[in-house]
Amino acid sequence: MTRLRNYTFDEITIGQTARYSKTVDERDIQLFAAVSGDVNPVHLDAEFAAGTRFGERIAHGMLTGALISAALAMELPGPGTIYLGQSLRFRQPVHIGDTVTVELEVTAKTARRKTVTVACRAVNQAGKLVASGEAEVMAPEQKLVLPRPVLPGVEPG
Amino acid sequence: MTRLRNYTFDEITIGQTARYSKTVDERDIQLFAAVSGDVNPVHLDAEFAAGTRFGERIAHGMLTGALISAALAMELPGPGTIYLGQSLRFRQPVHIGDTVTVELEVTAKTARRKTVTVACRAVNQAGKLVASGEAEVMAPEQKLVLPRPVLPGVEPG
Repeated sequence: MTRLRNYTFDEITIGQTARYSKTVDERDIQLFAAVSGDVNPVHLDAEFAAGTRFGERIAHGMLTGALISAALAMELPGPGTIYLGQSLRFRQPVHIGDTVTVELEVTAKTARRKTVTVACRAVNQAGKLVASGEAEVMAPEQKLVLPRPVLPGVEPG
Repeated sequence: MTRLRNYTFDEITIGQTARYSKTVDERDIQLFAAVSGDVNPVHLDAEFAAGTRFGERIAHGMLTGALISAALAMELPGPGTIYLGQSLRFRQPVHIGDTVTVELEVTAKTARRKTVTVACRAVNQAGKLVASGEAEVMAPEQKLVLPRPVLPGVEPG
């Protein structure tokens, strides 16, 4: 896929859905630790994590929040979306190697401010709910079809 | 600072505060794009961003969410915290070079489940509110003083 497309406020319908998946790998944990500054050993130190209730390293909870935000920005409504608010409940830990699929469903539209309410669920490869919540966004007024910028290449150094 | 310390549920008091600051630089935008998969040009393409309502590139909104989550995990309550939920309102865009300071304040404790409610504000270097919300966490029962893991070295490739 080499183009990004959005849905304008007028195109969006109640009940419209979208999905966005990403496998959370070792590199993602390192990157999220670097960008947030959260270097807790439950994320980074296998030996420490083995002694916690989780039994092994887990992803940062807000990494799932980042995937939900990406689903809104990339898929529904897509480019031009203004992020107004998000609620999140963290239900289950995400482990390294898990594939997280974000499921979005439009539940409300408000014409006055062009805002859209989106129910958000994130499930793992076993179908277990890892996080849920609700987003409020301002949907784009203008249709956009854009070349997709290249994903920055970043590696733990 | 070479050690991480936490506050246990019993140590935490209503009204307790903590702060956590980070300057959002070019590298952080690249890292957040890589980890989330959100490669929207408003974050990555200066020319495109100049034509938007923002006039220049802005950070991903959920990058501020990541800083709030790091403040909870690193400062209050700190290591051993279990993240249960977070609400967020995005108030103002964060620009490259902005220093975001997360201000946390404990507003409630529930003894039965060892949960703590934390009011969260994120302000920029001008003191302007960029995001606000509320976190619910399960506070650690056990006091931890840990060597601080080294922040992973990552650079755009």
